[in-house]
Amino acid sequence: MTQNIYDDAAFFEAYSQLPRSMHGLDAVPEWPVLRAMLPTLVGRRVLDLGCGFGAFARWARLQGAVRVAAIDVSERMLARAREQTSDEDISYEHGDLQHYDYPSSQFDVAYSSLVLHYVEDLGSVLRGVHGALESGGVLVFAVEHPMFTAPREPGFIVHPSAGQRTWPVDGYLDEGPRSSHWLNAGTVVKQHRMLSTYLTALSEASFKLWQIKEWSPSEAQVSEHPDWADERQRPPYLLIACTKAG
Amino acid sequence: MTQNIYDDAAFFEAYSQLPRSMHGLDAVPEWPVLRAMLPTLVGRRVLDLGCGFGAFARWARLQGAVRVAAIDVSERMLARAREQTSDEDISYEHGDLQHYDYPSSQFDVAYSSLVLHYVEDLGSVLRGVHGALESGGVLVFAVEHPMFTAPREPGFIVHPSAGQRTWPVDGYLDEGPRSSHWLNAGTVVKQHRMLSTYLTALSEASFKLWQIKEWSPSEAQVSEHPDWADERQRPPYLLIACTKAG
Repeated sequence: MTQNIYDDAAFFEAYSQLPRSMHGLDAVPEWPVLRAMLPTLVGRRVLDLGCGFGAFARWARLQGAVRVAAIDVSERMLARAREQTSDEDISYEHGDLQHYDYPSSQFDVAYSSLVLHYVEDLGSVLRGVHGALESGGVLVFAVEHPMFTAPREPGFIVHPSAGQRTWPVDGYLDEGPRSSHWLNAGTVVKQHRMLSTYLTALSEASFKLWQIKEWSPSEAQVSEHPDWADERQRPPYLLIACTKAG
Repeated sequence: MTQNIYDDAAFFEAYSQLPRSMHGLDAVPEWPVLRAMLPTLVGRRVLDLGCGFGAFARWARLQGAVRVAAIDVSERMLARAREQTSDEDISYEHGDLQHYDYPSSQFDVAYSSLVLHYVEDLGSVLRGVHGALESGGVLVFAVEHPMFTAPREPGFIVHPSAGQRTWPVDGYLDEGPRSSHWLNAGTVVKQHRMLSTYLTALSEASFKLWQIKEWSPSEAQVSEHPDWADERQRPPYLLIACTKAG
């Protein structure tokens, strides 16, 4: 069972204070790149896997999506999402992506932002999503980059002889759970997978790779937020778009 | 122009002493995995991109390839390859992969081992190889993994607080040349590219991704060669098989 720390009161409170929680998609640094990887949503049926506060679901409707089914495992997040939404064509549903009863061929676009690295059985989710898409449908998702999830001690260090800041990669081959403290509010369990494992799982679920980006902030973003400079040493996120061959 | 340090006498001498130079494919630790990614070679025409001493070309003929064209930029390596080969269906040709005049639709399988990370203009090589393959043809290659080529100071370090050995990744976003000393015999210039850049270049050259592996020695190999243990902290090589959709 995938951990659901988002229903822990203290964690939820801390998470709610993050810029991306308070200010929606405009405060999500990787959003411009992820958005550009999406197909048009006009007239499309959209499945939002791990919808959080529903910012993407509402944005998708503004782009012309005819219907959005938004799933999340956290009741607290769904409650907040429903409070912020007055749109009958968005349905918010409680569900664990790994055990969700995916309907058959009901959606044109599936989307997931920073959720799939929590899932233990990625293959079962990908098979479910593949079945839920129509032929020609598209899955676009972001996860923490495998270089980011691998280390036993994640955090930049100073290179002992060269002096520069560097990201320590170890345990990359040892796939599985990683516990880390986040937001001073709890221990989060993520699943480390190699980059090749993501791509092989997509292929095994009959998705075709369409676009792949190893996202770091742009130089312009670093100029505006100098404390993000380290994030250009190694990408924090992996963004993938893939298609259900039709 | 891609660097050709292999024609430097001292470097060539040192390179010739490596196990993989002296003992052929059986001394190449990634070979069993790379070999398993190849399609059958029976009756196939094979293009060997950066053939070195010709071990793969000779093996391909033993597997039933009808013809092997083997290209290398190093005259010294070609001379050694020709000395070791008595087979009229292997042709050894001097050429820089980036400026080679690739024939049209003449090959079924293209192969390249630890060469493409030297090439500056990967796109031009991939377009050439794509044109040289028949529809349905396959390209299988190994390169140094992008985590391996990225760092300004490549080499395992001890994590300053955790004490474990770790691989320092920095400069991953900064693609381009990396100079490193190798074999105490010279400065080698390699081209660092992100993993996503390899995949995007393949896609732009109209290849379809088929298989991808981030290779490290297996636990059995580490038992036999305990000094390889660090190589499981991060993969040294990236292995890819892709197809020319036909």
